[in-house]
Amino acid sequence: MLNFIDGGVCAAQGFRAAGVHAGVKTHAEWKKDVALIVSDVDCTAAAVFTKNVVKAAPIHVDLRHLADGKARAVIANSGNANACAPQGEENAERMCSAVAQALGCKPEDVLVSSTGVIGQRINVEAIETAIPTLCAALERSAEASDAAGHAIMTTDTTKKEAAVETTVGGKPVRMGGIAKGSGMIHPNMGTMLCFLTTDCAISPEMIKTALLETVSVSFNRISVDGDTSTNDTCCVLANGLAGNEPITAKGPDYDAFLSALRALCTELAKKMASDGEGARHLITCTVQGAKSEKSAETISKSVVSSTLTKAAIFGADANWGRVLCAMGYSGEDFDPDQVSVHFASAAGDIQVCAKGRGLDFDEDLAKKVLTEHDVEINISMGEGEASCTCWGCDITYDYIKINGDYRT
Amino acid sequence: MLNFIDGGVCAAQGFRAAGVHAGVKTHAEWKKDVALIVSDVDCTAAAVFTKNVVKAAPIHVDLRHLADGKARAVIANSGNANACAPQGEENAERMCSAVAQALGCKPEDVLVSSTGVIGQRINVEAIETAIPTLCAALERSAEASDAAGHAIMTTDTTKKEAAVETTVGGKPVRMGGIAKGSGMIHPNMGTMLCFLTTDCAISPEMIKTALLETVSVSFNRISVDGDTSTNDTCCVLANGLAGNEPITAKGPDYDAFLSALRALCTELAKKMASDGEGARHLITCTVQGAKSEKSAETISKSVVSSTLTKAAIFGADANWGRVLCAMGYSGEDFDPDQVSVHFASAAGDIQVCAKGRGLDFDEDLAKKVLTEHDVEINISMGEGEASCTCWGCDITYDYIKINGDYRT
Repeated sequence: MLNFIDGGVCAAQGFRAAGVHAGVKTHAEWKKDVALIVSDVDCTAAAVFTKNVVKAAPIHVDLRHLADGKARAVIANSGNANACAPQGEENAERMCSAVAQALGCKPEDVLVSSTGVIGQRINVEAIETAIPTLCAALERSAEASDAAGHAIMTTDTTKKEAAVETTVGGKPVRMGGIAKGSGMIHPNMGTMLCFLTTDCAISPEMIKTALLETVSVSFNRISVDGDTSTNDTCCVLANGLAGNEPITAKGPDYDAFLSALRALCTELAKKMASDGEGARHLITCTVQGAKSEKSAETISKSVVSSTLTKAAIFGADANWGRVLCAMGYSGEDFDPDQVSVHFASAAGDIQVCAKGRGLDFDEDLAKKVLTEHDVEINISMGEGEASCTCWGCDITYDYIKINGDYRT
Repeated sequence: MLNFIDGGVCAAQGFRAAGVHAGVKTHAEWKKDVALIVSDVDCTAAAVFTKNVVKAAPIHVDLRHLADGKARAVIANSGNANACAPQGEENAERMCSAVAQALGCKPEDVLVSSTGVIGQRINVEAIETAIPTLCAALERSAEASDAAGHAIMTTDTTKKEAAVETTVGGKPVRMGGIAKGSGMIHPNMGTMLCFLTTDCAISPEMIKTALLETVSVSFNRISVDGDTSTNDTCCVLANGLAGNEPITAKGPDYDAFLSALRALCTELAKKMASDGEGARHLITCTVQGAKSEKSAETISKSVVSSTLTKAAIFGADANWGRVLCAMGYSGEDFDPDQVSVHFASAAGDIQVCAKGRGLDFDEDLAKKVLTEHDVEINISMGEGEASCTCWGCDITYDYIKINGDYRT
């Protein structure tokens, strides 16, 4: 039993949040730019960070603070990435210390994330000044999650938030999160941040394992993946207040937890994928009949990352040739003459390619299918039993005036 | 001695060209869509093709026709890629046969290329019908090269053409070419075609070697590279009319030929790189002090392919953090604390980053530097002696309203 629920990062018991305007960017006079997430009790915690060689200062600080697998709070700001910046780690530590002092915990129990411009000193004084207001605003509510979710947005056009409820060891367990990031044109669109909270009782080792397993099949399967920013961070705090027997090894409880975490992160990843500037479509590409899951993933990701495919979907143009082209340059070897392609949505399902050759199809129906918000590209490889689904969005920029009508 | 000259693909002795409207796309009523390049005598010939797993029919045909290392003519059309299309190879062979019949040569001496929509049967009848007109229009002139250059354009906004003159074995040797393709946003922007002609006398083995060496340091160093279309082709025909002692091995003559071919292809590659839709800048990124040329190339290519760097250059925003970020996700390992970055152009040279940290710099001068059409990003790695230059363009789409001003 797994249900999506309200409450975002405050859905789980014992988690409060807040988001306020601190003035990290002097000319952004109103935007909320600092978020705080706090657990009433100590949490086991884990995080995955960017693979970029150039890592922002907060990541180096978090790696130290997570050495014991525990945390109480997360502070995050938008407006400045605190990467390649003077006094980077010193200022990231100051943010943690200010929160620790206000909450009465150790600085090492606080995690810190930043997103925004690279190379400029972060206005840590503005953040320190805002800490009392931020702490005063802390509450466990949908509104508080909303405020925190807004505070971490940069170029995002929508707030990303989700929460789920499941059962672990007979106890109801909740988990939720907020995220920022955009699956636009391509990879290097900016930082991805994701903060997850749960009241599940789980050991530091198992939560780390679960997070790694989940990220690889959710956030790593949207078209933002690949090129990673200096600040990308996904962390999870688990405070154990659900009262379940703590998960310390793989087994049914772990599987239940993992399923819920995967559902939560997939939902957040899809929200990122569909948040291109002006994007009108969420594209779900499923590759079936592949020789391995890895092969299916590589091909699927290549399709949802293809600028020309994105442009075709924007133009509701059933230009499956672009799909085959993107498959072909994915780096995977396969027999094009075994490939079939369907476009599908709530409006219908239409096969456009069989055995690598175009089919005559109803162009009017294809237009209807591709006009829906949620569009599927379903590919059969005819090679094996493995499958994988990845997500992306269309592009709506001017240049699709050239490409969106290219086929007809 | 190496000079750029006029004449494009007709610059070398004994080469004629033409471009006419055949009606490959029924609704494009005026656009030239078929090009023909013919040598008066047999040529040695070589070509490199797409690495895409899905290869267009003309490529399979060309591979057979090039088995003997000889060719007389190239026919190319825009409007239909003849990829994943019914009767693909049969129709590509028909194009070669029609040309061969008109010219009085063997079909195997004709090469064929196509670019355009994938998956639809090519209107080979329209092309066959146009062959007499096309042959009647053949001439050795700048106008003929121009017509052929226009006939292969698809989404290109400008025709790409260049020619050079050098000395090989004491004889003046000319080579020229036409190309199509665009270095816009990214890789999968469409097909790259390039047809090169030279009157140099050179063996099939050595011309193949020279072409491979050249493509890897020219067309493979613009941001279009990486993802390749189903049709990408670069071929060269050498008819020997310059009267030089034929090049049959490496040595001074080969080196002279190679230098000229590299200059020619680099010029054509730069024209592709700067032909993004509405692109206002050619970006030249040079990485110096790298541990290897391969490392420098990977880093440089990552920078010119970075959407956020492209957006910053469009906005004349000296946002070097995006340069470091793109370097960091290139896949190369390096020490960010050793990196320095300069922006340069005809308006000046300004250092923005030293030892991985931002410098205070004159924002007004930086703006001036980045407002020029040709902009350089010069990076020092502080690791070794190797260097590499790659080329790209800015992006001018709406979404840079978000990103172009992000830093300030």
